[in-house]
Amino acid sequence: MTAVVDRPTSPASGLVCRNCSATYPLGAQHACFECFGPLEIGYDADLLARVTRADIEAGPHSLWRYAGLLPVGHDAATRVDSGTGMTPLIRADRLADELGFTAPVWIKDDSANPTHSFKDRVVSVAITAARELGFTRIACASTGNLANSVAAHAARVGMPSIVFIPSDLEPAKIIQTAIYGGTVVGIEGSYDDVNRLCSELAETDEFENTGFVNVNVRPYYAEGSKTLGFEVAEQLGWRLPEQVVAPMASGSLLTKVHKAFKELTAAGLVPPSSWTVFGAQSAGCSPIATAFANGWDVVQPVKPTGIAKSLNIGNPADGPYALDVVRSTGGAMTSVTDDEIRAGISLLARTTGVFAETAGGVTVAVLKKLAASGQLDTSKETVVYNTGDGLKTIDAIEAGARPTAVIPPTLKGMRAAGLLTP
Amino acid sequence: MTAVVDRPTSPASGLVCRNCSATYPLGAQHACFECFGPLEIGYDADLLARVTRADIEAGPHSLWRYAGLLPVGHDAATRVDSGTGMTPLIRADRLADELGFTAPVWIKDDSANPTHSFKDRVVSVAITAARELGFTRIACASTGNLANSVAAHAARVGMPSIVFIPSDLEPAKIIQTAIYGGTVVGIEGSYDDVNRLCSELAETDEFENTGFVNVNVRPYYAEGSKTLGFEVAEQLGWRLPEQVVAPMASGSLLTKVHKAFKELTAAGLVPPSSWTVFGAQSAGCSPIATAFANGWDVVQPVKPTGIAKSLNIGNPADGPYALDVVRSTGGAMTSVTDDEIRAGISLLARTTGVFAETAGGVTVAVLKKLAASGQLDTSKETVVYNTGDGLKTIDAIEAGARPTAVIPPTLKGMRAAGLLTP
Repeated sequence: MTAVVDRPTSPASGLVCRNCSATYPLGAQHACFECFGPLEIGYDADLLARVTRADIEAGPHSLWRYAGLLPVGHDAATRVDSGTGMTPLIRADRLADELGFTAPVWIKDDSANPTHSFKDRVVSVAITAARELGFTRIACASTGNLANSVAAHAARVGMPSIVFIPSDLEPAKIIQTAIYGGTVVGIEGSYDDVNRLCSELAETDEFENTGFVNVNVRPYYAEGSKTLGFEVAEQLGWRLPEQVVAPMASGSLLTKVHKAFKELTAAGLVPPSSWTVFGAQSAGCSPIATAFANGWDVVQPVKPTGIAKSLNIGNPADGPYALDVVRSTGGAMTSVTDDEIRAGISLLARTTGVFAETAGGVTVAVLKKLAASGQLDTSKETVVYNTGDGLKTIDAIEAGARPTAVIPPTLKGMRAAGLLTP
Repeated sequence: MTAVVDRPTSPASGLVCRNCSATYPLGAQHACFECFGPLEIGYDADLLARVTRADIEAGPHSLWRYAGLLPVGHDAATRVDSGTGMTPLIRADRLADELGFTAPVWIKDDSANPTHSFKDRVVSVAITAARELGFTRIACASTGNLANSVAAHAARVGMPSIVFIPSDLEPAKIIQTAIYGGTVVGIEGSYDDVNRLCSELAETDEFENTGFVNVNVRPYYAEGSKTLGFEVAEQLGWRLPEQVVAPMASGSLLTKVHKAFKELTAAGLVPPSSWTVFGAQSAGCSPIATAFANGWDVVQPVKPTGIAKSLNIGNPADGPYALDVVRSTGGAMTSVTDDEIRAGISLLARTTGVFAETAGGVTVAVLKKLAASGQLDTSKETVVYNTGDGLKTIDAIEAGARPTAVIPPTLKGMRAAGLLTP
């Protein structure tokens, strides 16, 4: 593809290599020609600085209110807007109490997005970019949530889709992908195998028309996660929290929240402040947290296991960048076991009414663990990202969430079960 | 309970018997002392007429923007606000094309609510009312979605809950109830058995402290469904659609959408217009549609079967009122088989990206059936209510939503499966 995104009013100035800082025009390129490093979107700082709070607040009640800080969608007619974003920021006082916080704890609940995960953010931006770049089919490599979102958005806009997933995903995630009528390919292998295949396919003539949202459209796609940072700042009344805890799969989300906070500060949309970023992984797949614990700069790939399948990326593309962010802000990373994950899901549900998928259980369990160890400061305001919905991973918790009792429909039955009490 | 809801600024004037029009003060009463008929909220028409579009538009992005048209929550500090409401109204052009519509078809997608069904609306209002009425525990009889919502909202506000469900509900709905840590009682029987038991329990001393949202708090609870009508009118630019299609379980939702349209018109918030209401049931539980087809005024109870469990109320409390609304607006009702329900879920998913639970499949399948028979006018703008989420009823469609292919992670595997094509 040689099409170039050409909208003079976009703040995006080009593609920039994250390794060697080489620059390229905005197009369907994702790796540096010089050093093969990953590309990201570069912005014109003057254009970002022109964005005002009033502009944003006058925008739609979706992530597109931040179009002035995104690479595409400046022209509203080009946007794929499924109502994604502006998800609730819930003050979790009962969770804070239980974990010994003296400062507020907030849950940013992205299970409220249309397909019930944060992936609707990156897909909204990626499909908007893919259409502008001239792609006529949309694809992805996914651990599940991305598959749901790509297939749903493709159906919404009437675009053919082909989605690649590990064949052993949770049933709910497979069904929620297949129901939209696109092509769904189960791969006998791990997510890392799926990702490798998609990188190969993106180079074939047969897939020249196909935008892989997290391969050849990745620089645009990844920018969608910044809205998780923008929204928290706006919802807190245009200021940044002191601490954030985010789950890590590829590591991209965590780095983009940090990027969002930097951009908001540089643009004068929030007062300058310092913040600390914490990263969460499962014990079954903790390559980034392991590198952090060992003081490594390099992330050693692992073979993932465990119930937090949406985080099971053994060779995380943004791992080194996530390490940089956490170290440079004075944060920490750790990992939690499957039992801790299940307990994290329960803790969040019974204290806030938010039913998270296993990834959310990881993040809450890591919050608890880091608070207990003192690595996370319980006297500082903290935002915790819940990125997905419990209905997608019910098989992981089935045994732990059963009726209190099963009885006949009579007062006698109630009394016998000890339930006829105030 | 003798507490009375006392807020002079509320537009609610009292409780009114829907049978004999006897009136009572606002309190925790749900049946008429004179004739045992069901009570609903009466309003002061002058107070309703004072509400302006500007007032509403300046309110929160949740159903509480309509507090001026609801019996409780006029004082913002009293509201239980989980971010429910203002769900997407999606223009479904590809669905309209496929069904031969020449006018727009819209999907009002209530799977976007916090626990992913329209029940979050009635529960937001009911728990707000229950707290004002002095109840210290919250309860319900449920076919699943209400259970999810009551348990989640109770956890959110830190209130004890006890939820009653048929023990044979879909696993996802049982787990999503139990995860919040309240008491969940599985009843060996139908929803109608559950409902009967709850009516008995509400009269016991042991449950005097307990607000059953759809029993002794029902007049308040039911008003929450009006917001499904209010939002559609606002989202269409303050006008009413010509036709609406709604699912029927108790029949309450359908009657409240109609009530909302009448109130908006009376208050001058929308221009006067005529509208037609259509009702949808499954073949496994169609007591209201059967009464409609036979010209009966009385609804004969049935024993429910079939996959649309959230609609399986065999003895629907609002059945006669739903019949009145549909007949008086010139609409129609019909029912659809389990296979038609599954096809309805697929049709909606692949044309709009909305993944509905079986109840949504019922409604879309009825839309299709009534459009084909000419009972519903395809040249008139039509709003279809999707009341729940596909992730809650995946067991009903599992066989029909599988991967296109399962292959090894190689180009060779892609070619062998016939997938290496543009």
